[in-house]
Amino acid sequence: MVVELSKKVKKIGEDDPRRIAHSFKVGLALTLVSVFYYVTPLFDGFGVSSMWAVLTVVVIMEYTVGGTLSKGLNRAIATLVGGALGVAAHQIAVLCGEKGEPIILGLFVFILAAAATFSRFIPEIKARYDYGVTIFILTFSLVAVSSYRVDELMQLALQRVSTIVVGVATCLCTSIFVFPVWAGEDLHKLVAADLEKLANFLEGLSTEYFAEKGEVENLESKSFLQVYISVLNSKPTEDSLMSLARWEPGHGRFWFRHPWKQYLRIGALSRQCAFSMDALATYITTYPNFMPSSDPDLHLKIRKTCQEMSSESAKALRELSSSIRAMTVPSLASRHASTVVATVRKLEDVLSEGNAMSDVLHLATIASLLTQLVVRAREIAGSVEELARLAHFKRFDPIHEVTVKP
Amino acid sequence: MVVELSKKVKKIGEDDPRRIAHSFKVGLALTLVSVFYYVTPLFDGFGVSSMWAVLTVVVIMEYTVGGTLSKGLNRAIATLVGGALGVAAHQIAVLCGEKGEPIILGLFVFILAAAATFSRFIPEIKARYDYGVTIFILTFSLVAVSSYRVDELMQLALQRVSTIVVGVATCLCTSIFVFPVWAGEDLHKLVAADLEKLANFLEGLSTEYFAEKGEVENLESKSFLQVYISVLNSKPTEDSLMSLARWEPGHGRFWFRHPWKQYLRIGALSRQCAFSMDALATYITTYPNFMPSSDPDLHLKIRKTCQEMSSESAKALRELSSSIRAMTVPSLASRHASTVVATVRKLEDVLSEGNAMSDVLHLATIASLLTQLVVRAREIAGSVEELARLAHFKRFDPIHEVTVKP
Repeated sequence: MVVELSKKVKKIGEDDPRRIAHSFKVGLALTLVSVFYYVTPLFDGFGVSSMWAVLTVVVIMEYTVGGTLSKGLNRAIATLVGGALGVAAHQIAVLCGEKGEPIILGLFVFILAAAATFSRFIPEIKARYDYGVTIFILTFSLVAVSSYRVDELMQLALQRVSTIVVGVATCLCTSIFVFPVWAGEDLHKLVAADLEKLANFLEGLSTEYFAEKGEVENLESKSFLQVYISVLNSKPTEDSLMSLARWEPGHGRFWFRHPWKQYLRIGALSRQCAFSMDALATYITTYPNFMPSSDPDLHLKIRKTCQEMSSESAKALRELSSSIRAMTVPSLASRHASTVVATVRKLEDVLSEGNAMSDVLHLATIASLLTQLVVRAREIAGSVEELARLAHFKRFDPIHEVTVKP
Repeated sequence: MVVELSKKVKKIGEDDPRRIAHSFKVGLALTLVSVFYYVTPLFDGFGVSSMWAVLTVVVIMEYTVGGTLSKGLNRAIATLVGGALGVAAHQIAVLCGEKGEPIILGLFVFILAAAATFSRFIPEIKARYDYGVTIFILTFSLVAVSSYRVDELMQLALQRVSTIVVGVATCLCTSIFVFPVWAGEDLHKLVAADLEKLANFLEGLSTEYFAEKGEVENLESKSFLQVYISVLNSKPTEDSLMSLARWEPGHGRFWFRHPWKQYLRIGALSRQCAFSMDALATYITTYPNFMPSSDPDLHLKIRKTCQEMSSESAKALRELSSSIRAMTVPSLASRHASTVVATVRKLEDVLSEGNAMSDVLHLATIASLLTQLVVRAREIAGSVEELARLAHFKRFDPIHEVTVKP
């Protein structure tokens, strides 16, 4: 088991060596910030509040620069606002006398915590300021509640704010200047890689499926039939990278305010394309054999046109992918695209040649698609029955039901 | 703008009133735990460490019981382990004398923080213990580093552990006993609701598309063509609910160790089914008109069979959905399913009646599917060009390139 684990760990490191760098960066930032404890003049300045610097580093240090920045800024600003409101709450509560003070403080904490918690359900706040709201509740409660016991509240608040700022600054420096990992760059590469995968599917289709004359051997083992699958579920990764990328300053080839949203749009279209690939891949693996045709000429024509269509589309997608990578305006893609349009038209002509069939073809295609769909729906039934067995669902017994009623 | 916002807030509350309850629960838990500060005998017992109870409540209180439990247990156990190792590190460091102590401590913190951070990249740890590892690093660093300055380390550690336990207990009680939100129940309902949506699509197809004789009017505005869309991207929600549900104790109709994984399987199949629906929906909205048929009899037969197929599948899915909701063994679904199989066979027979076409039909279906796909791929080109414009990609100019070379 230890061998298994060490193999796994080695693979995780090899897959992306930046992970190892990140681990050392966390260690480095923590060691840097703990100097506050070791150096006596520093510790005399901040006292036990030095703890907050250590705490901040552990909680804020994220894998990407955007993650660290968004958490760091959220934490710093929320601490300031929460601390200021906490001091204000204390001033008001003091006016209410010895007995009233804890009641007023409790009330303030209850109302602000409830309101702030509810604000986290608003999507815009959730996406950008979720962590900030948590820290706001935290700081406000701590300052307001401990104001009941602590005399030098202002000094405490200032010490905390300054140590948190030190912690955030340490994280940001380590994050940005030591082997930085940019969420924006990752998003850029991910979108380009996904287009490349779609291109690989279409190319495989053209060279390994439509190029074959008769039966395609070992169709299910062809790698191109699996290549689009990771694109189907790329949405959560893209969404989170994009929300982190927005926080990042300009870096390398990306300026601040780079149009990150557009990547999500390309991602959404790629996903839709992958859905279509899924439908096609399922269809050709379910019915892998070309039937012997009574009209070999027509058959060949359709096959050739399909081959052309998929290879041209593959070229277009591959060019789009590499133009994103190189950040150059795609020049050939539109030419490929117009070739594809011409081929689509050609295909329509070819299909309408087979006069006898063209009028039913449309409906027949719908029928085939529907067949795919209902076969998949049927699989759900088996899966639900498995659930019923595993979870000991009760058996609905109509006869029993009848006898119960008078 | 204020009116806009208040409308939005009202809608969020109305959509799921449990959100309002959750907000008040957080306020309640915080107020409960701040009693530590207000009651003098309690404060004398725990001192400034009371702070950790407040901090724990803010950070741990999650929307679902599973979320609170997983964070609470992670925090409690990680604090114990991290604290114990921190004390051990202190004992070793003391042996190295006045000058060696900070160096040894710094080394320990660096190595453990780096190793623990790396372990967060292992998927199994990431999924279940991510928060625990963070808290482990936090507690270990705090205890080890502050041991350099604090004399009564054990007392401090014990106070912290006990206040954290109090915080976790407060959260758990509020979470479980006051309007609990169970992640497992939400997952259960989500999977059933998704099946219902698939059924609605198929029913709409049967009654609003295949039932029409000629042209279907206003096809794009039909609601059934949109109903499956939310199922396409249900994976992240299902994954997170499932990982939270595993932490939850038995509740209501769900036992501890309820087969939550099976819901993910049903969810995956539902998603695949939705992918097929997407292919079909795109096809019928792209070519909305039935062409005038040279063989009206055949046309009618195919249409009727398709109608039967989709309505039977809809019935089966609806029954599966309601049997999950009621937690009864599905009884009719398999009958519907076998009807569907029979209908699929009938459809194949009907299609092969049109002898002339059946041999090309297969290829023609593939051609139609491919056409869909390349049309979608073409849209990507437009989107990438938009990106190139927004992000000021440089223009790749072959002529310029040539002139540069000597």
